[in-house]
Amino acid sequence: MAQIKPRTLSGFMELLPDRQAQFDRMVEILRRTYSLYGFTGLDTPLIEASEVLLAKGGGETEKQIYRFTKGDTDLSLRFDLTVPLAKYVALHAGELSFPFRRFQIGKVYRGERAQRGRFREFYQADIDVIGDGKLDIVNEAEIPAIIYKAFTTLGLRRFQIRVNNRKVLNGLFALLGLEEHAGDVMRTIDKLEKIGPEKVLNILTEEFAVPAETGRQLLDLLSTEAPMEALAAYKGKHALLDQGISELETVVGCLSAFGVPADHFKVDLTIARGLDYYTGTVYETAMLDHPEIGSICSGGRYDNLAEYYTNKQLPGVGISIGLTRLFYVLEEQKYLNEELLTAPADVLVLPMTEDLSPAISLATALREAGIRTQLYTENKKFKQKIGYADKLGIPYVIFLGEDEIAQNKAAVKDMTTGEQLTQTVEEAIARIQAGLAGRNAGTPIRDRG
Amino acid sequence: MAQIKPRTLSGFMELLPDRQAQFDRMVEILRRTYSLYGFTGLDTPLIEASEVLLAKGGGETEKQIYRFTKGDTDLSLRFDLTVPLAKYVALHAGELSFPFRRFQIGKVYRGERAQRGRFREFYQADIDVIGDGKLDIVNEAEIPAIIYKAFTTLGLRRFQIRVNNRKVLNGLFALLGLEEHAGDVMRTIDKLEKIGPEKVLNILTEEFAVPAETGRQLLDLLSTEAPMEALAAYKGKHALLDQGISELETVVGCLSAFGVPADHFKVDLTIARGLDYYTGTVYETAMLDHPEIGSICSGGRYDNLAEYYTNKQLPGVGISIGLTRLFYVLEEQKYLNEELLTAPADVLVLPMTEDLSPAISLATALREAGIRTQLYTENKKFKQKIGYADKLGIPYVIFLGEDEIAQNKAAVKDMTTGEQLTQTVEEAIARIQAGLAGRNAGTPIRDRG
Repeated sequence: MAQIKPRTLSGFMELLPDRQAQFDRMVEILRRTYSLYGFTGLDTPLIEASEVLLAKGGGETEKQIYRFTKGDTDLSLRFDLTVPLAKYVALHAGELSFPFRRFQIGKVYRGERAQRGRFREFYQADIDVIGDGKLDIVNEAEIPAIIYKAFTTLGLRRFQIRVNNRKVLNGLFALLGLEEHAGDVMRTIDKLEKIGPEKVLNILTEEFAVPAETGRQLLDLLSTEAPMEALAAYKGKHALLDQGISELETVVGCLSAFGVPADHFKVDLTIARGLDYYTGTVYETAMLDHPEIGSICSGGRYDNLAEYYTNKQLPGVGISIGLTRLFYVLEEQKYLNEELLTAPADVLVLPMTEDLSPAISLATALREAGIRTQLYTENKKFKQKIGYADKLGIPYVIFLGEDEIAQNKAAVKDMTTGEQLTQTVEEAIARIQAGLAGRNAGTPIRDRG
Repeated sequence: MAQIKPRTLSGFMELLPDRQAQFDRMVEILRRTYSLYGFTGLDTPLIEASEVLLAKGGGETEKQIYRFTKGDTDLSLRFDLTVPLAKYVALHAGELSFPFRRFQIGKVYRGERAQRGRFREFYQADIDVIGDGKLDIVNEAEIPAIIYKAFTTLGLRRFQIRVNNRKVLNGLFALLGLEEHAGDVMRTIDKLEKIGPEKVLNILTEEFAVPAETGRQLLDLLSTEAPMEALAAYKGKHALLDQGISELETVVGCLSAFGVPADHFKVDLTIARGLDYYTGTVYETAMLDHPEIGSICSGGRYDNLAEYYTNKQLPGVGISIGLTRLFYVLEEQKYLNEELLTAPADVLVLPMTEDLSPAISLATALREAGIRTQLYTENKKFKQKIGYADKLGIPYVIFLGEDEIAQNKAAVKDMTTGEQLTQTVEEAIARIQAGLAGRNAGTPIRDRG
C-alpha cells in the first residue's frame, strides 16, 4: 500500500503521554482555582463566522487568522478567547446574570511565522468578570489573588504580580500636557526596561517634542521604587489621575485580606499593556528568575467588552495565561516536577494462571476502590511484563498465581522500593492508596528558587 | 459604531453556563472512568496536513471535511479521533510502550447538512488499546466493562451493550457459500431491525441470489434468542467461524468477573458495524427506552490501525461515544439531573460594611477550605443581591455586618431551606461542606426507567 509519512504540523504542540499528563494536571489546577473564585466554565466553538469574529477588523492579528470558506460560509478559527466571549455575552445577555464570571481554557489559532517556542495552535486560560453597565473596583482588586493562588498551586514560587492603572497614566499625561502624544509616549515608556531611561528620554524629547523637564519628571515618577508615595504628591491636581490613584490604593489595600504576600506584588507605573482597550487596572506577571520570558499572565480592566455587537455597556476585567507557551518554557527551563506520577495506571495486574477470572475480579475490585488498574494479559516473557511496568513508571505490580489465589491473596510489588508483600485485597488497596497519596502530593511545577 | 449581529454558527453547540456545567461533569466522569482502566489522556492538534489526514482517501467523509489552505499548506480539521491516533502511534511508535492504551476526548468537525440534533462541531470520547503486532483477546473482553462503568457512573440505567464478532459473521458467510456477497449480505442484515426478516430474506434471495434455504438458515441463526447455543451447533465446520465463536465465548465468559451484569449485555449476531475496518469483536450500546436514537457507544477490534503510515502491524480495539449528540438527546429526553449543582459558586459573600477587609478575609478562608466563593460588592439593593444568588442557584449566602464582625461570626443562609444561622467561620465551613456533599452526590443523568 502506498504510504504517507506521518507528521505533525510545525507550530502545533503534540505531547508524549507523560508530558501530556503533566500538562493536564496544570489545566486541572487552573480549572479548580478559577472555580474557587466563582467563575463558571464556558466552551465556545472554535469556528465562528468571519464577519462576527473580525467585527473589530484590522490590526496585526487579522493577517494571522485561519480563515476559509465551507460551502458559501466565510469562517475563521478563533485567535483568542475574548472575542468569542464578547459575542457570547452580547448574544446571551438576556439569559446571563451580571456580574458574569466565566473562565475558559481552550485552544486558539494564529498563523505566526513558525519558530522555536512559538505556537500556531495554543491554549489560553482566561477569566473575565463582566458587569452590566457598572463593575465595582473590588473585582479588579481580586485579580492578583487569583493569579497568586493559581501559580502557587501550580508550584511556582519566584514570581511577581505587577500592577498599574491606565487612569493614572492617562491622568499624568494630561497633567503634564502630553495628551496629544499619549499613545506615542506610552509606547516609548513600554520600552523602558529594554532600552533604559536615557534613550527613552531622548525619544520623548526629540521625536515627540516633550519638554526635557517634563520628560525627566515623568521618568522619575514612573521608575521610582515607592510609587504610591510618589503618586500621593500628585493628588488633587487632576480628576482622572485622582481616580486612578484611588483605584490603585484600593487594589493595594485589599491585597493582604485576599492572601497575597507583599513580596509577590508590586505597583509598576511603567506597565502600559497596549493602547486602547484597557481603561483601569492592568496586570503582568513575571518569573523573577526568567525575566526574558516576559509576562506569563496579563490582562486588565476594560470599559466595553462587546461594542462591536451591542449598545449594552459591558465593562469588565480579565486575565489570560498563555498555557502552551508557559508549558514549553517550564519544560525547557527544567521547572516540571519529574517525580509526579505520570503513568497511565497505578497498578499493573499480571495473571499467572490459565483461568483469568481471579485476576479480572482483582482488577475490578481495585478499580472500585478508585485505583487506576491495567490488566496485562499479553503473551510475553515475565521480564518483558515487568519491563513494561517499569518503562511506563507504573508504581505497583501485582502477581496472581495459584498459591496466591489459594490463599485469597495477591503478591504486591512496590516498583520504587522493590518491596514485595503477599497481601489480601484490602491490605493491598490500603498500601497502594497510601503510596499514591505521597506520589500525587507534589505540584506540577518544582521551583527550586 | 457600526455593529455586527452576534450569532453562533448553526450546527455548533454553545451552551448556557448551567448546561455547560452538566456537560463538563459528564466529560470529567468519562475522563475518570477511562483513567481507572489504565488509559492515558492524549490531546492531538485539531488541524493536520491534509495529505496526512486524508491518507486513506475517498469515502463519504471526505466531502464533509473542513479543508483549506494557509500560506502554501493544505490543511484539514480532524473529522474523528482515530486517524490522528493512527498518525500519532505511527509517528511516535519508538517512544511508546505497547499495548498502548489512550483516551481522547475532543472536538471533531464534519460539514454535514445542518439539521436538528446534527452537529458540525462535536465531541467524541474515545478509547483505544493498540498492540504491537499482537493484542490479546482479553482487551476485547474488557471493553464492555468500561462501557458499563462509564454509563452507570453517568447515571444511566436502562441500557444494553450488544456484542458480535466479525469472524463469526465472515465464517458463517464462508460456510454458507456467501463469501462473494459477504458485503451485500452484511449490509442487508444491518437493515434487519428496520425492515424485518421477511424483507431481508427477499433482498437476499432476489438481489444477491442467495438460495432461499440458506437465507432462511442464516436469518434464523442471526435472530435467535440464544445465539451462543445456536452457534455451538456450527463448531468444527470452519476455522474462522471456530475462532470467532471462541473469541465470543471469552468475551461472554469474562463479563461477570469484570462486573458487568447479565441484563446489561447481549450477544447480537446481527450487529455488523461497517465493512472493512473491523475484524473481531464489535460493540454497540442501546438506550432501552430510546432505541430510535441508535447506538450511543460503538466500536470494535481492528487489525491494522496505521497501515497508511507504517508497515508496522498495529492491531487494536476501541470504542467511541458521540458526546455532543448524546448530550443533546439526554437534554431533549429530559434525562439531565436538574437537581445537581450547576451554580458558578457555592457561596455568595455579601459585605454589609464600608470596610471590606473582613468580608475579603472570610472569602479567602472559605476558598482555602475548597469552597467556591464569590464576593459580591456591586452597589445594588439588598433584594437584587439576594436575587442574584437565587437566579444563579448559589446554595449559600453569607452576610457580614458590624454585629457579626464584632462577634467574629457570619450570618449564613441556606438558600434552599431558608435557614439562617450566625456561625463562626469553622462552623460555616462544616455546614456548607456537608450541604454541598449532598448536593453534589447525584449523577449528571437521572434515569427514571
